[in-house]
Amino acid sequence: MAEPLFNRLCLVGIGLIGSSIARVAKKRGDIAKTIVVTTRRAETLQRVRELGIADVVEADAARAVEGCDGVIFCIPVGAYADAMRHIAPHLAPGAVLTDVGSTKGSVVRDLAPLMPEGVHLIPAHPMAGTEHSGPDAGFPELFEGRYCIVTPLPVSDPAAVEKVKELWRRCGSMIETMDPITHDKVVAIVSHLPHLIAFTICGTADDLAEETKEAVLKFAASGFRDFTRIAASDVDMWRDVFLNNREAVLEMLSRFSEDAHAFGRAIRRGEAGFIEDRIKRGRKIRRSLIERKQA
Amino acid sequence: MAEPLFNRLCLVGIGLIGSSIARVAKKRGDIAKTIVVTTRRAETLQRVRELGIADVVEADAARAVEGCDGVIFCIPVGAYADAMRHIAPHLAPGAVLTDVGSTKGSVVRDLAPLMPEGVHLIPAHPMAGTEHSGPDAGFPELFEGRYCIVTPLPVSDPAAVEKVKELWRRCGSMIETMDPITHDKVVAIVSHLPHLIAFTICGTADDLAEETKEAVLKFAASGFRDFTRIAASDVDMWRDVFLNNREAVLEMLSRFSEDAHAFGRAIRRGEAGFIEDRIKRGRKIRRSLIERKQA
Repeated sequence: MAEPLFNRLCLVGIGLIGSSIARVAKKRGDIAKTIVVTTRRAETLQRVRELGIADVVEADAARAVEGCDGVIFCIPVGAYADAMRHIAPHLAPGAVLTDVGSTKGSVVRDLAPLMPEGVHLIPAHPMAGTEHSGPDAGFPELFEGRYCIVTPLPVSDPAAVEKVKELWRRCGSMIETMDPITHDKVVAIVSHLPHLIAFTICGTADDLAEETKEAVLKFAASGFRDFTRIAASDVDMWRDVFLNNREAVLEMLSRFSEDAHAFGRAIRRGEAGFIEDRIKRGRKIRRSLIERKQA
Repeated sequence: MAEPLFNRLCLVGIGLIGSSIARVAKKRGDIAKTIVVTTRRAETLQRVRELGIADVVEADAARAVEGCDGVIFCIPVGAYADAMRHIAPHLAPGAVLTDVGSTKGSVVRDLAPLMPEGVHLIPAHPMAGTEHSGPDAGFPELFEGRYCIVTPLPVSDPAAVEKVKELWRRCGSMIETMDPITHDKVVAIVSHLPHLIAFTICGTADDLAEETKEAVLKFAASGFRDFTRIAASDVDMWRDVFLNNREAVLEMLSRFSEDAHAFGRAIRRGEAGFIEDRIKRGRKIRRSLIERKQA
């Protein structure tokens, strides 16, 4: 077995992602010698104890990070700044601080100004998840074969960057490096806009007259169902994603809306050629995904 | 084995749906004594002969329907009126004419005025499909456990209606009865709007700069992928669906657009409460589907 990457690794927050990291670390043994878990809710702390996925369970985040050479934020991105203000004076010199949030520009914006001298901020985003949340939802295989996007800063220490990459390699992920702005644009279209649409179409259906709504639930298999799968996602996490990737999400929503309006206009005017072209482009993208084995 | 429902049943068009009906009829033996297939393309006719899924293969639809007590239109809904004009003088008195189209108001609009005296028009819509098309794509289990919506007219002969329902029962489907207008509204939200969105978001992604598009295909697993599955659908069929369910699709698109804009506005203004409410409604609809085992 390789030398553990971290001596003492603290997970701040222990939902689906945090508890999956804890499980893979426990299982492999080469990620951290000691796994510390901190979270605010007493029931969650108790549940983590019962699950046996941490070596140390600590209610106070400031005490939890003391003496840790690695800290991973696994909380909603909107909670980062407050958490950082609380723990900053307690971070060990030379520690690597990383995260798992779905937005990266906001992480740099919120955390970079609060970083103590000598602590390395290396933001990351494991692109993995399920519709379940909480410490019971995690499993050690969650990250296997999935991408993890690491978004180092120009000033980031190369050794610290490599440590975060190696962490995700040991979790089974494929590593991509990107700047935070590009990351936020890409996830806006591949993930945030689809989620916004999924939440919206569910609301649109929910607003229909009771009788039609009944029928929607009954006949959901005809396409609607596919759009609801991602609508089961965690409320706090997704609220924070939308609020913290505002510009990129609004930009993609605006492009999509223009395109949807153009489609609607073509239907109204009976423009068969335009409609065929749109359908063909859909099929083309679908074929590209199949060719890349991403379908 | 029960007495065959039809003596001579003609399938006009032999794509995914038509060839699945042919296969289940062949397999069961109690749907029709003789299965006649007609389609315009010579290669398709030849392929149907090779597949052995018809008793009679006939290039001319007018000759194909002669002497048939059952006729099923399995062609894109935009082709119904022309096909009907061609076959109407050749339909046998007392024959039942039904269809499998995804729009029903347009079927009544296009076919009712052309129906010869004594021929029964009973529109129907089996809610089943895959992303594949053509006579090779069909399979006898396609309709099992799926809904079939029958939309009789107020003047429809009850025996003819029952015959169409029994046809779909023997195909394994669950029968629902609805008027054509309600049908068109329901499918607009459960199926046509999701397809419109799927085609659109693929186009939006396709319009992005080459580098971002690359990344979209790479990271599609994060939500985008779910939206592309239904975007692989048949071009002619879907063009005709949008053009023939115009009012209901535009109405649902307009409701959805308003809701998406409201979501965007909440993101712009940082309205956390509104966003949380939308996410919760998505989760609620998702839970309803899970409870109904439609998820």
